[in-house]
Order: sequence, then C-alpha cells, then structure tokens
Amino acid sequence: MRFCDLIIKKRNGLKLSEKEIDYTIKAFDEGEIPDYQMSAMLMSIYFQGMDINEIKYLTMAMVNSGKIIDLSSIPGIKVDKHSTGGVGDTTTLALAPMVAAAGVPVAKMSGRGLGHTGGTIDKLESIKGLKTELSLNKFIDIVKKVGASIISPTSDLAPADKKLYALRDVTGTIDSIPLIVGSIMSKKLASGADAIILDVTTGSGAFMQEYKDALKLGKIMVDIGLELGKETVAVVSNMDEPLGFAIGNSLEVKEAIDVLKDRGPKDLRNLCLVLGAHMLKLGRVAKNYEEGRNRLEKILKDGTAFNKFKEMIAAQGGNTEVIDKPELLPSAKYCTKIKADINGYIQKIDSRLIGESAMLLGAGREKKESEIDLSVGIILKRKVGNKVKINQDLAEVYYNDSEKLKEAKNKLFSSFVIGDKKPKKLPLILATISQEGVKEWE
Amino acid sequence: MRFCDLIIKKRNGLKLSEKEIDYTIKAFDEGEIPDYQMSAMLMSIYFQGMDINEIKYLTMAMVNSGKIIDLSSIPGIKVDKHSTGGVGDTTTLALAPMVAAAGVPVAKMSGRGLGHTGGTIDKLESIKGLKTELSLNKFIDIVKKVGASIISPTSDLAPADKKLYALRDVTGTIDSIPLIVGSIMSKKLASGADAIILDVTTGSGAFMQEYKDALKLGKIMVDIGLELGKETVAVVSNMDEPLGFAIGNSLEVKEAIDVLKDRGPKDLRNLCLVLGAHMLKLGRVAKNYEEGRNRLEKILKDGTAFNKFKEMIAAQGGNTEVIDKPELLPSAKYCTKIKADINGYIQKIDSRLIGESAMLLGAGREKKESEIDLSVGIILKRKVGNKVKINQDLAEVYYNDSEKLKEAKNKLFSSFVIGDKKPKKLPLILATISQEGVKEWE
Repeated sequence: MRFCDLIIKKRNGLKLSEKEIDYTIKAFDEGEIPDYQMSAMLMSIYFQGMDINEIKYLTMAMVNSGKIIDLSSIPGIKVDKHSTGGVGDTTTLALAPMVAAAGVPVAKMSGRGLGHTGGTIDKLESIKGLKTELSLNKFIDIVKKVGASIISPTSDLAPADKKLYALRDVTGTIDSIPLIVGSIMSKKLASGADAIILDVTTGSGAFMQEYKDALKLGKIMVDIGLELGKETVAVVSNMDEPLGFAIGNSLEVKEAIDVLKDRGPKDLRNLCLVLGAHMLKLGRVAKNYEEGRNRLEKILKDGTAFNKFKEMIAAQGGNTEVIDKPELLPSAKYCTKIKADINGYIQKIDSRLIGESAMLLGAGREKKESEIDLSVGIILKRKVGNKVKINQDLAEVYYNDSEKLKEAKNKLFSSFVIGDKKPKKLPLILATISQEGVKEWE
Repeated sequence: MRFCDLIIKKRNGLKLSEKEIDYTIKAFDEGEIPDYQMSAMLMSIYFQGMDINEIKYLTMAMVNSGKIIDLSSIPGIKVDKHSTGGVGDTTTLALAPMVAAAGVPVAKMSGRGLGHTGGTIDKLESIKGLKTELSLNKFIDIVKKVGASIISPTSDLAPADKKLYALRDVTGTIDSIPLIVGSIMSKKLASGADAIILDVTTGSGAFMQEYKDALKLGKIMVDIGLELGKETVAVVSNMDEPLGFAIGNSLEVKEAIDVLKDRGPKDLRNLCLVLGAHMLKLGRVAKNYEEGRNRLEKILKDGTAFNKFKEMIAAQGGNTEVIDKPELLPSAKYCTKIKADINGYIQKIDSRLIGESAMLLGAGREKKESEIDLSVGIILKRKVGNKVKINQDLAEVYYNDSEKLKEAKNKLFSSFVIGDKKPKKLPLILATISQEGVKEWE
C-alpha cells in the first residue's frame, strides 16, 4: 500500500476501507508513515469527512494501538463520563462520588487542562497528598472498594490517539468531527467501561461553538458507541457562560464540595444531576431518568455523596481534612474585583475570554509543559440574567503574581456584556441523544 | 507569526497576505517550518485554492529563495519555453536550434524524466560527450556564441520550489493549480529570460487530462507572467496520443534530427513550428505569427536549423558525428512488434499507457534515483485515424532486457483502441492564450 495513494483517495472524496484505515493508524503509530504524510491525510479528512463506518474503523484502530483496560473484576455496570470541555466545569469531581454512592462504579481516567479549559486531574492535585498516577491494579482496587476513582490515563491507553492529537494540534486539524469522535471514543472504549455518558458542550467557551455542530458531534458519538457495543447517551449542554461561579483549580474543588454538600451553583448542581441520572439508568440502578434523579437528590441531601468523595480522596492518598475545611486548600495571596460600569442586566459572559483570563492568572496552561498555579482563579459574582448596578461586583480575581493581572482583568471585564433588557436564557440542557433518538429542547 | 494560524486561515478559505506567503516560503526553505505543517498548508491550498495575487506572491517568494540568472549580457530578447509534459515530446530539442537559427537566443534549463514522461536532459545525454551540467558562465557563453544552450538547472534556481515539490510529490498535493503555477513560473522567472512560451498539454498522457483544466492553468500562467513583467504566451496542445512516433531517449533524438532535416512526424513538426513562430514574435524577430512560421519553414528547408543543432551539440562537448549518422546513437539489442488483432481504424492511443510501457522497458524512471536505459523505447507504426488490418504492425518495441517485456507489450497493446469508423481527430493546438486574450479552436 502506497500511503500517498490513500491520501489522494481520501482527498478525492472516496471512502477508506477498514484495511486501509487499520494500516494508516498502525503504520503511523509505528513511525512508518511520516508526520508530513499523516498531516496531509488529516487535512484531507478535515475537508472530505468520514462516514460512520470509516469513523468506526478509525476508532477501533486507535483502541487497538494500545490495551483495552479490563474492568471485568469490578462488579456492576461501569459507566464512564466524558465532556468535550468547558470553563469552570468541575462536574466530574462531584459526579463521580454521587454516582458511586448510588451504586454505579466509576473508573475514570481524566486529563489535564490545556488552553482556556481546565482539567480534572489538575483540580484534584489541589488536594494535598492525592495521587493521580496509580497502577492499574491499585485503580481497580479502589473502584472495587470505594466505587469511584479518577486517575491520569495510562500510557498504553490508545497511544496512537495521543500521537495523532499532538500532530492535529499543530496542523490545524483539531476541529474535524470524525477525528474528534475517533479521539474521544477510542479513549472511552479503551478505558473498558460498559456504558458511556457524554457531555457535549456548546457555546462561546466550548469546542463546538455552534449548537448544530455539537448536536451532530453528539449524534455521531452515540452512533459509534452503539455500533461498537457500548450503550451511550449524550447530552448537549449550554456552555455560553461558565458553569458555576468558580474558575481555577482549588476554587473549583471548593465548588464541587459545595455541590456535594447539597449547596453550590444551581447550573453546576443541575448538570451533575442530569448526567448522574443518565448514569444511574445506564448502570441499571435506576429504572428511568426520573428515578435516577430523585435518588441522587436524596444522596446529596443525606451526605452519602459527600462521604463517598472523602472516601475516594482518602483511597488515593489525599488529605481529607481539606474536604471538611476547604479553606485549607491552596489559596491565592491577593484578591481584587472588577465592577460594573453601567446599570443593567448581564446579557452574556464569554466563557472563552473568562478561561483565557484565568490562564493569564496562572490557572491554566498555554503549552503542555507550562506550570500552573493551583490557587489562583476567578469567582463570578453575577451570571447571565442577573441585575447589576454601577460599581457592583461582577467578579473576584484571586492572584499571586501581578505581572499579567492587568491583561487578565481586562479580558475578564470584556467578557461581560451588560444591557437594558433582561435576556432570555437558554436552558442548560439543549438536547439528549440516546439509542431512542434525539430529544431537543423546545 | 504562528504558522498553525496561517494553516487555519487558508483552511478556512481566507486569503494569505504577501507577508504571510513570504514568511511561509522563507521559513519552510530554511527548515523553520517543519514538513508536517507545510503539508497541511499544501492540502489546504489544494482545497481552498489561491487567487491571482496569492499565486503571484507565492511565485515571487520561490524566485527569491534563490538567485535570478542574469542573462543581460546576451544581446536580444531571450525567450524561454516550458511544457507541462507529454509522451514522446521531443519538441525542445528541435525547437531550440530552429529558433536560435532565426535569431532568438534560447538559454534553456530543462529537467529529467519522471514517471511516464521523458526529460530533455536525458534525451540529450544519448549524445556521447555532451555535458548538461555547465557553469553559468559557460552556459551564457554558448548562448552568446551559438544562440542556444540546454542545461540542467543550477542548484540555486528557486530552491524552495525544489523542496516544496519533493513534499508535494509524497503528500498528494501535486495537482493543485496554484501550486503548479508557482512551481513552473518561479523556475521560468528565475531563469532570467525576457519572455516565455508555455505548452500546456492536455489529454490522456498529460498532467491536465481535461481541456478545461489545461485552459485554466494556461490562463493563470499567462496572467502571472504578465503581472510579473514577462510577456507570456501559452498554447494548449492535444496530448491525447503521443507526439510523433518515437518514445524513448535516443529514439526521440533521432526524431528531433528528422524534424531538423525538414522531415519527421507531422504533429511534432507542426508543434515545433507553432511554438517557434510564437517565440520569434515574442523575440521581436518576426512581426507576427505567420511571418515567424514562414521564416522557420525556410530555416528547416535550407538546413540552417540542422546546422545550428550541430553547433549547439559541439559547444556542449557532444559528438556531432551522431547527428549526421543517427544510427550511431545508443540502440537497443532487440526489436519486437505488436500487431493489430482486428481490422479497423485507430480510435485512440492512450499516451499514459505508452509512457508507462516505455518506462517498463527502462526508458523512464519510476523513482528519481532510478537508472535509465537511453537506447530502449517504442516506435509507433500507426497513429489515431490510421487504418489497420489484422496482423499489421501497431508499434515496434526496442529492448535490451526481457524481464518486464511482457508487461510492457501488454500495456502498449492495451493503449490502442481500434474501431470500425474513422474517428474525428482533434487538432493539435486547442487554444492560444496571450495578453490579447484566448483564441480557442472552433
């Protein structure tokens, strides 16, 4: 097989066979296909797309580049969760213990933050002593005993995807639906769970800024999951403003703890309940969505979820004292505020700008190798639809270093749009996609 | 400038500025932009195209990656010729001395053959002693004294194009009009001629198989030439069957000698006269096309062109004895024939298949580093429109090695399509493009 002929085949809009896609991923992973040919193939895929079969072959070829984690020793239906990324999205931290407390085992591998979005692993590392790089045995052991564990991916989890993603990142081929689906679904399938819940975010801070693109991505991911034998549900959630109030690692841990204490921001709590209810249904511990949701509400109220979180933290070596006393989490030396300069209603809070502002403070990484400051970040004091008067607070800025403070504050300030009329607010959940079809918000 | 942002800009269909294109070519040539990013850019250009300004910037950036050859010491208007490549196309060999004999200096750099098309430099090397790698001074000296010289390109002739072409060749980005125009025109402009004649071939053996694509390519090349201050004329010529009868290096030299002796195949002779007449007009030694053509016909008849060829060969160190006695040129050990298996008229002779057949015999290179056999090749005994009876000759095959003979003969045989009716034959020249506009064959 001459790889250049395969590039031309895809470039000309033809479909690649299973054998051709297998060869492509295997030979690329083994260094036989050079990066300069692979990037031409990726750009051809960007322009010509892939049909559902090609995406399936791509996904499986990447799964097979590594090992599929064997979770069969853990009793019950293991349900994995993935989000396409948001700003201030600390859902996983609250969701994993909530669901585990209800009896659904969660063996989750999470990533680190990059660019304007944060990562669950970074957030967890705000907790002193907590280890996120555990052996597979230890990981499975914790899930068996506690019901939930969150760690960094092992190196043999779809390694071809890792190599491919690094190439996509520098060749303008990130935002291609078939490549996104292949990347996400290969990791989820290799992680060994039995069922998958996907949170496809949309809006200014999300990867898929347009709702219709997010819906399309969700549909294809559900199709691929089902085709490959995993029950899969996706929700399309609105990330037009940040989720919750906190943006920044230890600040978001505090907010997750709030949710687990049956408090916390309404939108974050709601998203945890929605995703959790689906997970309980997928895990067959609830007959339907409503039953799942009621169960979780109870679990939040009676403290079971909160205690489960502490158990999980302890099992991973973390100091549980900080869970009871979140004020012991890393905190920034200084705080400043930004205030409204006119009266009105908050029309819009640009999530991307907020994420970038937090990154400037040191909460996020510009490059993979950047160091981050776990203590800094932003607390929103107003959200979309809130009334605000001149000189009232819009947000608090927590910082240690004033070098880029001005730039960060400017970005933060410019993310708020204030207007006369109370804006219409989109619901948090815009669509739910499952094997039963698509249910869109009306 | 982050190069990935430029890839995304082009990918999204936006136009690149002069500064951006300059940066791209310079940084790529200097190894600052890695191949894997450049190939993603090339594929984006393949899909999104470039407008006339972008192509102009691209062309000039590649010209400026090397040196522009200074031909100003040669008196007269120097006219360069380029063909997009054909099968059995030995035009340059006859054309250069014809035009030089009429007083237009020809300082031409030519390439070697690759794939199913041959190269003028290889053909010339059939002549014992002839050097094709001369110093620039020696080259200019010969043009001054003799009026014509044909050599291999110097290494500093648009070096960025050389690097870019090598990358395009393995990434499926050869057949992109902006990239083709940039590649051809940068070399022509760097070669230092005052005016340019372009032969854009179309048909089965040509790079542009469709007439409309060839026409488009020709128009853009003429526009770019004119924009960059060089009078440029293009003809679109029909390469649906091979040009002349001979395919193979020394066989084509013999055929060029035939033309210079005022004999030879009608189509090859005609193409030389057409291109030559335009060159005489461009070189201001003929008032118009007709005057140029008449002049060249006279020059062929009276032996001036033939003598000019001998002079040129001698100046480059070649043995002129072979020009008088072409039977001394390298010749193959064996000859076999392929014959018609039905009665009828030749409907079609697939040039690409013929070129591939000659390559299998050893006349062409599969890869750049392949060795070629100058003596082998094919002589067509029938051309499109000719009548043929069962067992009459279609072509002669000259070979030294019988290893791939069967495959070569099969390809050759399959290139002939024989049918009942006398086919309508397209003219050789399908269009002429100049600053006065496009004149299409009616």
